[in-house]
Amino acid sequence: MARIPAELAISAMARALSSRGFSAPRAEECAAMFADASLDGVYTHGLERFPRFARYIERGWVDPAAEPAMAASFGSWERWDGRLGPGNLNARASMARAVELARSGGMGCVALARTNHWMRGGAYGLQAADAGCVGIAWTNTTPNLPAWGSRECSLGNNPLVMAVPAEGGHVLLDMAMSQYSYGKMEAFAARGEETEVPCGFDAEGRLTRDPKAALSSRRPLPIGFWKGSGLSLLLDLVATILSGGDSVGAVGARGEEYGLSQVFIAFDLSRLPEGASRDAVSEMAARLRASEASEGGGRVRYPGEARAALRAENLAKGIPARDELWAEILGLAGS
Amino acid sequence: MARIPAELAISAMARALSSRGFSAPRAEECAAMFADASLDGVYTHGLERFPRFARYIERGWVDPAAEPAMAASFGSWERWDGRLGPGNLNARASMARAVELARSGGMGCVALARTNHWMRGGAYGLQAADAGCVGIAWTNTTPNLPAWGSRECSLGNNPLVMAVPAEGGHVLLDMAMSQYSYGKMEAFAARGEETEVPCGFDAEGRLTRDPKAALSSRRPLPIGFWKGSGLSLLLDLVATILSGGDSVGAVGARGEEYGLSQVFIAFDLSRLPEGASRDAVSEMAARLRASEASEGGGRVRYPGEARAALRAENLAKGIPARDELWAEILGLAGS
Repeated sequence: MARIPAELAISAMARALSSRGFSAPRAEECAAMFADASLDGVYTHGLERFPRFARYIERGWVDPAAEPAMAASFGSWERWDGRLGPGNLNARASMARAVELARSGGMGCVALARTNHWMRGGAYGLQAADAGCVGIAWTNTTPNLPAWGSRECSLGNNPLVMAVPAEGGHVLLDMAMSQYSYGKMEAFAARGEETEVPCGFDAEGRLTRDPKAALSSRRPLPIGFWKGSGLSLLLDLVATILSGGDSVGAVGARGEEYGLSQVFIAFDLSRLPEGASRDAVSEMAARLRASEASEGGGRVRYPGEARAALRAENLAKGIPARDELWAEILGLAGS
Repeated sequence: MARIPAELAISAMARALSSRGFSAPRAEECAAMFADASLDGVYTHGLERFPRFARYIERGWVDPAAEPAMAASFGSWERWDGRLGPGNLNARASMARAVELARSGGMGCVALARTNHWMRGGAYGLQAADAGCVGIAWTNTTPNLPAWGSRECSLGNNPLVMAVPAEGGHVLLDMAMSQYSYGKMEAFAARGEETEVPCGFDAEGRLTRDPKAALSSRRPLPIGFWKGSGLSLLLDLVATILSGGDSVGAVGARGEEYGLSQVFIAFDLSRLPEGASRDAVSEMAARLRASEASEGGGRVRYPGEARAALRAENLAKGIPARDELWAEILGLAGS
């Protein structure tokens, strides 16, 4: 495991993107977003994801030069066409536009069709929060989650992001509708460990904490059993209808995960009494701090609370990266 | 168990409300909403909930005459003050206003402070869908759910509603952030049954399917373990900030559940190409129908799919009500 300074990681990934059709400023922006995910500790969607992103470009599923175009305007809600451009750049442009709409209309929504995997969803929540907005966003995915009562993956895990600005560090929820991602289950399996709570169903349809069983049956568990199944379904349906894009089913019919539908919502807090968001976050944080920890537990934390400290550490020491991964990225960069 | 014709139930409840300070039209509207919940099969928030609602009026926590007033307008997003009026009438007025805002601005949001329990949340999703809108709404509650890592209830179960219009019957998700409501756990306990999946923690902090253990420890399970805990927290925080109302913590400090914060969002689909919502729902329904059922399972259903048939049955046969409950309602009606 190496520690790679963020600037070094960004410049290597930017070179790799430049040689794959990205303009220099877009290569830099896109690479910085991958580095940001790793800096914040979301390693699976940072450097670890970069080689797969490069392959998607090479196969033509991601068009490096495509920028989103407005498809329809209904006022505070707009439809945009992602034109199969890079998912993270498309998503960032969409949340920026939602914030712009919120500046004039109090709230704004961009529904984005024909886009690609947005990589780390939390980035768009933080982006809204940095602009002083409440941010809400979600995406659909390829079918990777069984509907409750079914043994087949007909739903997506459709990550949902919610963020609230706060001076000490934004509150950030970034959660898929599966209890564990495939990546997390693979990590447990590689360590020979069971998951803390059930992760899916085995071949006989029994709930299991054995990640290998859930991976081989391809039946991960929706959060809250029937409830997460329902929420996943509604998130997909609403994203599809608002954007005019493809559903999880239509994405699945293509076989590869591209051409997704996403929703970006922002509420501009700048016209509220000063400190409205700060005070609400402080009250919530104090309530959690005061609540008694469960058996064997430590301090109760809110989502996003640990981010700033981890980011500071990764900025100081460098981004942790497996040696083979860093070698692969350098190979893609042609150096 | 009696079967009470809906008109009879409505007129009894309307009499009870009239004698407790409701104007005649508001008594009729409020009573019809309780009957509607029962007709749709949401018995816990229909007639079953009515006697408790009457007590809240008697204790002064619900002001029968109060109507919501606009507190601030930011464009497509408005803040309203519920003035502690009846929660279901306040919520219906708020979703109606969100739909109105959506007609002009594409989307609309009403954030409602100082309101009361909205009874059946799904009603406001159906209301938006009946108006041809996607509806999203959520409420906070009194603290009734432990944050992940804590043994104390510092979060609410904060029900979330999402609805999509469809001609054959709207798609409707109406879910709290707890795996089981207290009422559901009590029903399992009364039958001497275990819950299908874990419902909470016992006194020693172990996951349990014993509803009595989870009830006596007052530690129900958030959906998706840490994930539902995080989602509950963000829903409360966003409702509090957008409405300028009280958080779960502030509601809890009062000891009784009144003075809540809620959010109502509508997207007007009337300017989309005709059939946009219908086609998306059909595709989704066909996908679920085609997906293989799990072991011992029947047809895979989407949320809200069974509603129309159950409603038709209850309209034809009458609303099922325990004899003691119906006697109690008649008592409240003074007949």
